[in-house]
Parts: sequence; C-alpha cells; structure tokens
Amino acid sequence: MRVGELSSLSGVPTPTIKYYLREGLLPPGERTSRNQAHYDDRHLRRLRLIRALLDVGGLTVAVARDVIAALDSPETGTHKVLGAAQQTVIRTAAYCDDDAREDATAEVLGLVRRQGWKVTEDSPSVAATAEVLGALRQLGLHEFVDRLDDYARAADAIAATDLDLVRRRPDIDGMAEAVILGNILGDALLVALRRLAQVHHSAELFTDDRAPQADPHG
Amino acid sequence: MRVGELSSLSGVPTPTIKYYLREGLLPPGERTSRNQAHYDDRHLRRLRLIRALLDVGGLTVAVARDVIAALDSPETGTHKVLGAAQQTVIRTAAYCDDDAREDATAEVLGLVRRQGWKVTEDSPSVAATAEVLGALRQLGLHEFVDRLDDYARAADAIAATDLDLVRRRPDIDGMAEAVILGNILGDALLVALRRLAQVHHSAELFTDDRAPQADPHG
Repeated sequence: MRVGELSSLSGVPTPTIKYYLREGLLPPGERTSRNQAHYDDRHLRRLRLIRALLDVGGLTVAVARDVIAALDSPETGTHKVLGAAQQTVIRTAAYCDDDAREDATAEVLGLVRRQGWKVTEDSPSVAATAEVLGALRQLGLHEFVDRLDDYARAADAIAATDLDLVRRRPDIDGMAEAVILGNILGDALLVALRRLAQVHHSAELFTDDRAPQADPHG
Repeated sequence: MRVGELSSLSGVPTPTIKYYLREGLLPPGERTSRNQAHYDDRHLRRLRLIRALLDVGGLTVAVARDVIAALDSPETGTHKVLGAAQQTVIRTAAYCDDDAREDATAEVLGLVRRQGWKVTEDSPSVAATAEVLGALRQLGLHEFVDRLDDYARAADAIAATDLDLVRRRPDIDGMAEAVILGNILGDALLVALRRLAQVHHSAELFTDDRAPQADPHG
C-alpha cells in the first residue's frame, strides 16, 4: 500500500508517518519509484506499536527508538534477551546524594534477601529501586519505606503473572516483545488499577454513606 | 537565608532556583531590598519536593505546577480532597478508537463489580483504566487483559497499604501530600520493585543454574 492508505488504515496522519520514518522509528518502505514507496502489514503493526509506546507508554521518541531497536535485534539466551528487553524500560534518574544512595542500596539488598529473590547486587533493578527509596527518605516519606515489604509482596505477585504470560509466548522475539510491551503498558495498567482501588479504599475509610452515588469523585 | 545559601543547602543551582521562581513552582521569598530576597526552610522543603516531582516522578514543569497548586489550596472534605489530589496524578491519554473504548469501559466496570469496589461509572480512574485496556486489546495483547483480575488483586493490596499510610497523616494537607507524593513516587517504587521481582522470576524460569552469580543480567 502507499503512504496515504497506510495513514487511513492506521489513523496516523501522513506527516506524522514521515516524521517516524525520518526518526528511524518506522523502517522505510520498498521504493517503487523516485517519489513513492510501498508499505505492508508490518508497517501497520509497527505504527500501532509506536503509537502505543508514545501515547500509552509516554516514552520519548528517543526511548521508543531504543525499545524498537531491542526488539529488532535480540541477543541470544532467553534470560539474557529478557534482561536486555527489560533494560530498555528501566528508568534511571539520579536523585539521591551519595550517602542516601548507599543506605538505600543496603535497604534494597536486605529486601531482596528477605523476599528470597535471586537477584545480584549489581543488577540495574537494584540501583533503580535504591534511587526511589533514597528519594522517599530524603523527602521524609519514611512511612512508605517502612511498608516496603508489603509493596514488594504485591510486586512479586505481579511479576509472577508477568513471567507466566512471557513464557507462554511461542518464540524468543515474542517473549522480548511481551517483556517490553507488558512492562510499558503493564505499568500504565497497574497505575490505573491502583488509582481505581484507591478510590474504593478512600470511600471505605472517609465517607459515612458508602453507596457509590454518594462518592464525590467517583 | 539568601538565594546562594538556599542553593548550597538544596544542591539546586541558583539559575535553576530562579527558573522555578519564574515558573511559579517556588513561591517568592520575602523582599529585603531591591535586589535581594529572604528564603526560609519552607523554600528548602519545597525545592526538595520540586526536584522529586521532576526528577523522580518524571513530571513536566506544567504538571508539577498543577500538583503544587493542588497541595497549596485543598478543598473541603477528606474524600473530596483526596480525590482532587489523585486527579493531578491520573494520566489521561487518548489512545483507543471509540468502539474499543466502549468495550474496554464495560470490561473495567465488570472488574469493579467482581472486585466489589465502590467506584462510580463516571470516575476518571475508570476512564484511565479503560484507555490502557483498550490499547492492550488493540495491540493484540489479550493475554494481559485475560489476567486482569490477578493484577487487580495486587493493585487492591497496594491501595489498601496506600490508604492506611494516608489516614495516619495528622491533617488533611498531610493526607493530600501523601496521596500526591505517594502516588508519584509510589508508582516509581512499584515499577522498580516489579522489575526487581521479574529478574528473580526470569531466573527461576529460564536459567538452569539458579545461583545468583550465574544470573547474566543480575
């Protein structure tokens, strides 16, 4: 199909499609003449993925390009491929000062031991967790850190479901895709479900009339 | 203290502090002369909050300003204030087409009934969840939607802990602050904990040697 049809079928405006082509998010179509190229269903599927990463996942164009590159060139070995796929969706923000980071890292490693998680000390996911934990401490939100094990238990249940879904994928490409999309969209899903459940628990705690119609913010 | 001391104590460069003042993130100091202003501990605490919202929460300056405005002018009624606080951290992305959104909304309301959650149909959190659910369906990730109840149970446990922490705050301002910071930093924390637990579950499923040192990505 030509770019106009790709635009109609995907709902993505032609100038936007050309922008994705220039940015390397979308692979070029097959040239059919000097000014025309032919696109196929892979482009349509890829466009859906791009929109999901940008609009639903909230990724920047640069990060979306990294995610797509990881999908297009997976390394060998299931655990390693999944690790690489996971890397693309681990956020790294430097927030804490060095002392806070060191303390927080020790706290995370303590948590890993208590949960019996098989994760090495130098895992990027340890560093990412320590960064947030240090931020919570620096803001004086010690109460959240005190309930770390409660949150970790919920995260363990979520991750067990995640990996159960990943392992059902027929091949390693599909598994890597499930890790990336499952994490990006799955984060958005969990955030939404958490808010939904919070409305319920807020109504339970703070309204006398617990009937849904009396709930001022739904 | 003067702006230089505020900068040293907070670790935020003076030009950045002036930028936050111009953008209305930081309230002005008390003018002591034509070119000088006096700042106090509230400015120091507010600067920590701003850095946390921007660096850890990943909010834009515009969204951070809304969050701070919500904190500075809470409405009356606990459940309502918490609802307003929560609104500032609910993401709204239009992703699905109308049919997908309608189907997804019905699915979310079914979930709310099954979980026994007291949430009205017009809640922004219902719409936010439906948007992500529709996106998962449009991308063909039906497997994640099929396990919605598993994820919802984990979200319910998380929200119960969240609200338990909120209700321990001594006043309504503190509760609103806990909702906003607990959600923004709490999302980052849960995302990090989820990744951490995934490494463990991936190692359990996909490596023969389950010793931590044999784990290729930690």
